[in-house]
Amino acid sequence: MNLEKFFTAKNIAIIGVSQNPNKVGHVIFRNFIDGGFLGKLFVVNPTVDSILNHVSYKSILDIKEKIDLAIIAIPAEGVLNALEECGKNGIKQVIIITSGFSEIGNNELEDKLKKILKRYGILCIGPNCLGIFDSSSRIDSLFLPRYRLKRPREGHLGFISQSGAVGSTILDLATSEGYGCSKFISYGNATNVDESDLIEFLGNDRNTKVICVYIEGVKNGKKFMKICSEVSKKKPIVIVKGGKSEEGNKATLSHTGSLAGNALVYSAAFKQSGVIEVDNLENLFDVARTLEKCIKPKGDRVQIITNGGGYGIMATDAVIQNCLRMAQLEKKTADSLKKVLPKNATTGNPIDLVGDADTSRYKKAIDCCLNDKSSDILLVIALYQVPLLTTDVIDVITEANDLKKKPILVVSVGGEFTEVLKKSLEENNVPCFNFPHNAVNAIRALVDYQRD
Amino acid sequence: MNLEKFFTAKNIAIIGVSQNPNKVGHVIFRNFIDGGFLGKLFVVNPTVDSILNHVSYKSILDIKEKIDLAIIAIPAEGVLNALEECGKNGIKQVIIITSGFSEIGNNELEDKLKKILKRYGILCIGPNCLGIFDSSSRIDSLFLPRYRLKRPREGHLGFISQSGAVGSTILDLATSEGYGCSKFISYGNATNVDESDLIEFLGNDRNTKVICVYIEGVKNGKKFMKICSEVSKKKPIVIVKGGKSEEGNKATLSHTGSLAGNALVYSAAFKQSGVIEVDNLENLFDVARTLEKCIKPKGDRVQIITNGGGYGIMATDAVIQNCLRMAQLEKKTADSLKKVLPKNATTGNPIDLVGDADTSRYKKAIDCCLNDKSSDILLVIALYQVPLLTTDVIDVITEANDLKKKPILVVSVGGEFTEVLKKSLEENNVPCFNFPHNAVNAIRALVDYQRD
Repeated sequence: MNLEKFFTAKNIAIIGVSQNPNKVGHVIFRNFIDGGFLGKLFVVNPTVDSILNHVSYKSILDIKEKIDLAIIAIPAEGVLNALEECGKNGIKQVIIITSGFSEIGNNELEDKLKKILKRYGILCIGPNCLGIFDSSSRIDSLFLPRYRLKRPREGHLGFISQSGAVGSTILDLATSEGYGCSKFISYGNATNVDESDLIEFLGNDRNTKVICVYIEGVKNGKKFMKICSEVSKKKPIVIVKGGKSEEGNKATLSHTGSLAGNALVYSAAFKQSGVIEVDNLENLFDVARTLEKCIKPKGDRVQIITNGGGYGIMATDAVIQNCLRMAQLEKKTADSLKKVLPKNATTGNPIDLVGDADTSRYKKAIDCCLNDKSSDILLVIALYQVPLLTTDVIDVITEANDLKKKPILVVSVGGEFTEVLKKSLEENNVPCFNFPHNAVNAIRALVDYQRD
Repeated sequence: MNLEKFFTAKNIAIIGVSQNPNKVGHVIFRNFIDGGFLGKLFVVNPTVDSILNHVSYKSILDIKEKIDLAIIAIPAEGVLNALEECGKNGIKQVIIITSGFSEIGNNELEDKLKKILKRYGILCIGPNCLGIFDSSSRIDSLFLPRYRLKRPREGHLGFISQSGAVGSTILDLATSEGYGCSKFISYGNATNVDESDLIEFLGNDRNTKVICVYIEGVKNGKKFMKICSEVSKKKPIVIVKGGKSEEGNKATLSHTGSLAGNALVYSAAFKQSGVIEVDNLENLFDVARTLEKCIKPKGDRVQIITNGGGYGIMATDAVIQNCLRMAQLEKKTADSLKKVLPKNATTGNPIDLVGDADTSRYKKAIDCCLNDKSSDILLVIALYQVPLLTTDVIDVITEANDLKKKPILVVSVGGEFTEVLKKSLEENNVPCFNFPHNAVNAIRALVDYQRD
């Protein structure tokens, strides 16, 4: 199944662009214009002559140029006819935003829709979805206004979401945190393009380094496991599964119309297919960023460096709770550290550089630990509230990370000053976390993925 | 033990104010001036005549006015002498910032210090601490520059931290999130004022509604349990315990010199004393804000209202995982909701108002649920990415919350637009969360506390 054309379409028709700026079709059209899409847009609305200086066609059949992708955003009762016309026009890629199909029990309408898709050989994303966003080609069928949902910068996280709302909040959060995105797909009822097809597609997408997925159910278990087993060898797949409880499972029926199934069965299938399952969206981001940015660790031994004793202790607790190992510094490393660090510093694990640590103290500790053979991963806690820690510690950490000797993760928490420094590190491929437990959860996933 | 005078002191002496703006004593002095402290400041430094337009005294003994509080920020070797002079001058409250005592194994020095405290009947916070911050009197002994650590607004969360670093990041985060703080105390080695004394003190402080504590160990178990049992009847105590793992426990020895002890013993003692134990600092904030803002729920039945199906499902999963109950709407409520909601909305639990929900739909659902007898707590998920949900939904939620019929918690996640609306709700006493699992964890703590 070749889904590439959804993301590289040059001529795009939007069917159902109202003059009312609050209506779905209008918002989508507006977003294409504002988003800097470089292809050509065609508007279909039988009741008006033009919208925002674009000719409005009465029907898709009136468009003589070849259309690469049609986006349908009209009420459910008109969708079959519009789709039929797309088929007659030879359009092979369609996104149907409209809801009111199997997710509200209207299986008959969805079956008719499937038949039309089959007859014309149309690939369809949706119905009941947001469609797609491509940070590179700027194709953007999301009907959410840009002032409410900012679009993320170009990057390497690919997102697939069965739920439009979950998908949109993921994008919004990614944008505000500065995380880069390659492609985003909200696929709704998955009439003929399902989660497995999309995972396979992102598996082959060279802009995507990590595939992030929110699903409630899987359409075809065997296909899903086969594709995930192959893709997960190439790049990590991180999944949040909604509807794990029996009650949540019931709720999925009226949401995307899919049966969520037994949580344990899903977890086992994920594990067997090399998929990383995480508990919630927060962990999804933490794990995905870490897998995107970090090199492969040689093992599971974590060395902690801190300027705050309490944070070192909380990080130690988290390492043990996550069944990772605390590194034991080589004697020669500990000895040489003792020589260069003040008396009240601790040269074990954690290495506590104490509250008056400056950048040079961090540099000494990080350099020693990178060369020490006892650890596989460095967890650096840098609390910027203290006066002597100058901002060039960012350079020290970045340079150490660039050596690609060991994965380095950083914990820092605080207000604006801290946030500025964190973003700077993130841009330099060092994943940053607010709290030790977030970072250590991500280390756990990194170790697991790289070991498989 | 009367600790009130630490926070109401009018005449404060700072011992060890260097002319170097990076030195601890100087930063403290500067913070008092910049923070708008209305009392009188006295500076002690034998080597200079004046600092920042204040006379510098050679010794504390040279000050003839009555000093209510002395803050000592000189190297460890001079502390005993300075303290002795404080005693001779009749000073009864002292904060010792200086480190280099029992936390690095120098028990001898700490024992001598204790003897002086005892001889003169001095109450001492520290050594090896940040000291105190009072958002009302503006007393602020934190040696962290204001541009690095912003100070929180006046409010009702009281913080006690054994670790200075943990305490300072808590304050910084509280400030940036807009949470209000009553008093903050970093107590370090706890020579004669310990965590139990501070919990007792905040228990009687009328500005403090919730007591938040980070501890690694408890000095006196019996005293701690006795005080917590009493205080927790009046107001909630939420604790994060560092050093729960054996390895983390070892690390506490070189941090605050306390033996962290067996995690299970601590957890049992917390439970028995009515203390709410949380796993990490993120949960500490979530739980504390909820306990501060929410009325007492009548039971543990949660009703979810959402405009995003996926979030409803994740919230359902979280409710079940936390052993809370999903409410079952009364039939008459479901019937009247069905009449006013569109066909594709779901009137069960979750109530899914679907993606095109506007404010009036939220109002109808919330009103119905407040009057419905089947639920005790409302979890409202409001995703602001969709175009039709206008910002006056904030007023609807606030007005519903002001009726004080049931606790209302809100989940919203996204970028700047969302953040603005969330802060507005928080200011109106509605706790807001990024993800369903955060909110439901807080509900669990709310139900547990109010049941005890």
